[in-house]
Amino acid sequence: MLSIDHDDQRYLSELAGYVAVPSISRDASSEVMEQAAYWLVQQLSFANGRVEETEGHPVVRGEWLKDPDAPTILVYGHYDVQPTGDLAEWTTPPFELTVDGEVMRGRGCTDDKGPVYVVLKVAQAFMEQEQGLPLNVKFLFEGEEEIGSPHLDAYVTSHAAELSCDLVISADGAMWRPSEPSLSLMSKGLVTFSIAVRGANDDLHSGRFGGTVANPLHGLSQIVASLHHNDGAVAVDGFYDGIDELGEQRRAELRAVTFDEDQYRRDLGIAETFGEPGYSTIERLWERPTLEVNGMEGGGKYTVIPHVAKAHISCRLVPGQDPEHVLESLLAHVRRQVTPGLVVEVLLDDHLIPAYTISSDHPAIGAATKALEAVYPDQKVLLACIAGTLPATALFERVLNAKTLFFSFSTADEKLHAPNEFMRIRRLREGMVAWEQLWRLLADGPYRLAKIETPVA
Amino acid sequence: MLSIDHDDQRYLSELAGYVAVPSISRDASSEVMEQAAYWLVQQLSFANGRVEETEGHPVVRGEWLKDPDAPTILVYGHYDVQPTGDLAEWTTPPFELTVDGEVMRGRGCTDDKGPVYVVLKVAQAFMEQEQGLPLNVKFLFEGEEEIGSPHLDAYVTSHAAELSCDLVISADGAMWRPSEPSLSLMSKGLVTFSIAVRGANDDLHSGRFGGTVANPLHGLSQIVASLHHNDGAVAVDGFYDGIDELGEQRRAELRAVTFDEDQYRRDLGIAETFGEPGYSTIERLWERPTLEVNGMEGGGKYTVIPHVAKAHISCRLVPGQDPEHVLESLLAHVRRQVTPGLVVEVLLDDHLIPAYTISSDHPAIGAATKALEAVYPDQKVLLACIAGTLPATALFERVLNAKTLFFSFSTADEKLHAPNEFMRIRRLREGMVAWEQLWRLLADGPYRLAKIETPVA
Repeated sequence: MLSIDHDDQRYLSELAGYVAVPSISRDASSEVMEQAAYWLVQQLSFANGRVEETEGHPVVRGEWLKDPDAPTILVYGHYDVQPTGDLAEWTTPPFELTVDGEVMRGRGCTDDKGPVYVVLKVAQAFMEQEQGLPLNVKFLFEGEEEIGSPHLDAYVTSHAAELSCDLVISADGAMWRPSEPSLSLMSKGLVTFSIAVRGANDDLHSGRFGGTVANPLHGLSQIVASLHHNDGAVAVDGFYDGIDELGEQRRAELRAVTFDEDQYRRDLGIAETFGEPGYSTIERLWERPTLEVNGMEGGGKYTVIPHVAKAHISCRLVPGQDPEHVLESLLAHVRRQVTPGLVVEVLLDDHLIPAYTISSDHPAIGAATKALEAVYPDQKVLLACIAGTLPATALFERVLNAKTLFFSFSTADEKLHAPNEFMRIRRLREGMVAWEQLWRLLADGPYRLAKIETPVA
Repeated sequence: MLSIDHDDQRYLSELAGYVAVPSISRDASSEVMEQAAYWLVQQLSFANGRVEETEGHPVVRGEWLKDPDAPTILVYGHYDVQPTGDLAEWTTPPFELTVDGEVMRGRGCTDDKGPVYVVLKVAQAFMEQEQGLPLNVKFLFEGEEEIGSPHLDAYVTSHAAELSCDLVISADGAMWRPSEPSLSLMSKGLVTFSIAVRGANDDLHSGRFGGTVANPLHGLSQIVASLHHNDGAVAVDGFYDGIDELGEQRRAELRAVTFDEDQYRRDLGIAETFGEPGYSTIERLWERPTLEVNGMEGGGKYTVIPHVAKAHISCRLVPGQDPEHVLESLLAHVRRQVTPGLVVEVLLDDHLIPAYTISSDHPAIGAATKALEAVYPDQKVLLACIAGTLPATALFERVLNAKTLFFSFSTADEKLHAPNEFMRIRRLREGMVAWEQLWRLLADGPYRLAKIETPVA
């Protein structure tokens, strides 16, 4: 066992310097982004830490290679943060790490600066106390995660050989609840697109032309209404293709998850939950795909027939669904709902991301479960799912042929992306203990990672 | 016959002084509005012209009373104008009356300053050449028509005795086409309201909550889609109640109207017209009620489930429909479309205006037809309808028990409310001849107006 420093104050002071860099990937200058990148480089001095250029904000790389025969992991995280949002909503300045009872508050402290800091401290402790890491470790920290990682794919593809590994471990992500340790076996895929319904060449006065031309808002509403049955099921032919039926065993596992439906409703301020019939709320969240209209716009509160109306749509996919097939099914459905005099245009986005899964039999899940049990000895480790989408997983699987283990000590309720982002301070040391155990378990013993053959582009 | 000055230039110079006053009721100062009002007062010096206060912009009043036994008309118009809209779209400054070939251009020149000017010049010619008008004439010009006449009802109600008359003649309105003279026998009523569909207490991340809560955009789209059948007919029980079937005689009249459907489509840039089945485009415009969604809004192009989605709706009513019954039918329909977990709120506006009609047998229509035939001797006068709504008609009928004749020499294509508003210069003198004839015909002979009993509040 490593001896881990028990003085939280030292961690907090050091982390405060990192949080103080406002590395908002959406609008920070390249100087500010580099400042954050070089903060990581300096922490990675034991691993040949360095900045490498991309078409956008740079990545930070490093590696400590013990032995070609030892298992190799790639640690992933990011140094960029979300914009602050409304400053008036922050109770303390967003870029001053502030301790408030048992939590620390500041933009990026839990997404993803704190969780990355945990890994760095563990690696440094290994180097100081054991003069080496228990396995080969590569580091890849990007600066564009919060803007959809536009240049990560090209970078990973062109550096596939250097990044080859037997497992990616992500310091990004979050446990779903503070009260119990959890690991994620799945994250949902994503298909997004917009629909524009066009009518006349200009907005028309609804008094002068009403009743004689098709109204784009009516046409768009018919399309949107046709996407679901009244009972909440998706009504698009082919949408559910390829999904395995939810087995009784998994249903029993999910029934065993502590989930307070009344509390969920109260938190959201709704009288009833609603969704696909035949499934519980947690089954809908973790096991079933969704189709949500995120926005609609057209005309206004005056007597007009707008010439265009738009809807923005996103689908979250589960394993078995092919994103291209889902998109084609949706487009075929949309194109069938045509009103004379209207033109329906579909605007595609770049997002065609399949669901990601890692089997509960994978040694990484076994090792991670043991590691969490070491930190939380009285609690059962929950095997959960992520209802959102983590696009990097699909990239690592496609290019590096490697599964990704989410091993973050952030928690989903810590106001990620919102004002007053915070992290529980205890998670820092809990994380360090767990990462130490995880590396040891993956290096040797029953959970030792098998070497995988990596196809390099 | 009056001798009408044939020097257009003199009219244009005088009218230019009126157009130069930027009397935009939505945002002009009270000084500017009074400047426009006093321009009218000075023109009405023969009729005791004066400004009278309201809770908003003042009205201009005047009257020339010949004889208690003579018929009495009330001339209605307005001195306020619409905002300019985007100044960059104007080819000449909006408040400089500019001659451009056969038209004059400037904000308000055709809505409603030019048409009111026509009446003033006719009245002044009568006074100069015949030392009096052929009948009793009262004048009422308001300064809030373009903002929905919020104080006209109170003013007319509290001055009902002074404003009593046998007919209102409106210098506001427009002929529907420049190529043929027309009179309007009907204008549609108006019912407007908004729908707000509410879900959770705040916007939700569609990745974290999608599929488990009802989405207000889905609920709203279902409501909007349910308002019409796919073939274009309104699907609300009770909406069409009270409307007489369209008779074969009226259908024949409408078939005889020159209406180029191809040109209509080309002008609007649409492949097909669309509306209630069983009716032609002109029947839909003039004889059938409409229900149009004017705006929808909620969420945006990001992964959110918005907590509220809104739609703004307006209905145009035809004779026989009761606005309160139409509204109740709509509310009952909307309330039946409920998704669990959503709350539907209806936000009522003040608009509950029935359709307005004047019979083709009314002496005013007979006199007006003759008057137009005198000006346009080779053309048949078309009996048309106004697909829009003119709320003052219902007010005059209710409070003064008087029908309104629309007798404007504006034309519907003259960019009313838009940049580059214009008026055909020839309409000034055509209008003067027609108003002279109209007054003479209403004063004496077969079309002499009968005195009506006026209930005074």
